[in-house]
Amino acid sequence: MLTLYGFDVSNYYNMIKLAMALKGIEYKTVMTYPNQTPEYLAICPTGKVPALQTEHGVLVESNVILEYLDEIEPSVPLLSGNAFERARIRELSKMVELYIELPARRCHHEAFWGVPVADVTKKEVKRALYVGIQSLARAASFSPYLAGDKLSAADIMFYYSADLAAGVAKKLYDIDLLAEAPGAKELMKKMSELPEAQQINADKKAAQPAFNAYLAKAFGKA
Amino acid sequence: MLTLYGFDVSNYYNMIKLAMALKGIEYKTVMTYPNQTPEYLAICPTGKVPALQTEHGVLVESNVILEYLDEIEPSVPLLSGNAFERARIRELSKMVELYIELPARRCHHEAFWGVPVADVTKKEVKRALYVGIQSLARAASFSPYLAGDKLSAADIMFYYSADLAAGVAKKLYDIDLLAEAPGAKELMKKMSELPEAQQINADKKAAQPAFNAYLAKAFGKA
Repeated sequence: MLTLYGFDVSNYYNMIKLAMALKGIEYKTVMTYPNQTPEYLAICPTGKVPALQTEHGVLVESNVILEYLDEIEPSVPLLSGNAFERARIRELSKMVELYIELPARRCHHEAFWGVPVADVTKKEVKRALYVGIQSLARAASFSPYLAGDKLSAADIMFYYSADLAAGVAKKLYDIDLLAEAPGAKELMKKMSELPEAQQINADKKAAQPAFNAYLAKAFGKA
Repeated sequence: MLTLYGFDVSNYYNMIKLAMALKGIEYKTVMTYPNQTPEYLAICPTGKVPALQTEHGVLVESNVILEYLDEIEPSVPLLSGNAFERARIRELSKMVELYIELPARRCHHEAFWGVPVADVTKKEVKRALYVGIQSLARAASFSPYLAGDKLSAADIMFYYSADLAAGVAKKLYDIDLLAEAPGAKELMKKMSELPEAQQINADKKAAQPAFNAYLAKAFGKA
């Protein structure tokens, strides 16, 4: 059976949980915060989460895991269509991750955990988020999903990235980030109405206090 | 016919050129520096290069284009094997890009173009490059290729990323980055011996003076 390493507050972990739920794949979980211990690095080369233990070995990186799950369990496809259509889904997933999720992540410390980040970083991130959301607005159809009328891996990436990025934009810059991409808020609402997403959100809420305590200890605020 | 936008000094552009050459795909090129003009943004949503015009529309992001080329022209495969093996190639490609190429890129200005970057950025990048190369050393086999005995898309990503990252590491930190991953230097040498890579390198050298002039103008040094 597949084993998933991660924790219920992690947005990347929750991407995999949503794909698993939509596809009806059974799996075990091992509650794991990102760490660089020799024990975990022997399992997961980056020390990040999620990591998926398969019968062949471990896979890391959420978009890679999503695509693997899609190949082994093609029911409820997340990358469907011809070569070009699949490429578009990969492209949109990557744009969301590189140009929205990852820039915003550089400011999570300050936006969510009260640990200041450098002014130069905040300035870079503000510009990156504007460029990123505007690029996505040009590339995505939002009709209603990023790649058209079918939910795809790109929408899962978007759903679990855009809320955090919007939170950073609001808190640090007082910007309504998703307003820059017409259709984005409607898509977020549509995704949030999935029963599977609601369960994952409930799991996240339940796991938040333990994660907060972990962070407080990590940042010496315990 | 496929049309590729970009310029011969761009490492990402050269990834596509190498894949095209290895696969024997014919294509046209349009010499393009990254730009945010309305004309180019109408073609390429990010304004970056490379962008590939296909009969169905435009694709961006090098790993996405590599995978698309592999689907439309599977001779000389770049993502071969079963679902797990293909996932591993995607994983290694992504690790190279996210944890080696992109951190180093944040210091290209200072390392290659003489335009200082902030100390906080240099500090972050130094740590990121160490973590990145060590993660890759754990994940990749280097036997002799990243994913085993077959050249894959991950090796193309590595070849055109590791030299620039090593250049940043040497110039800014006096670190021998590739020494951290046994087998990395041998792989770079092996890739550089491909006749197709040598032609691309010759094209790059020929295009460098024009790019230098473009940069000098962009940074107000003309």
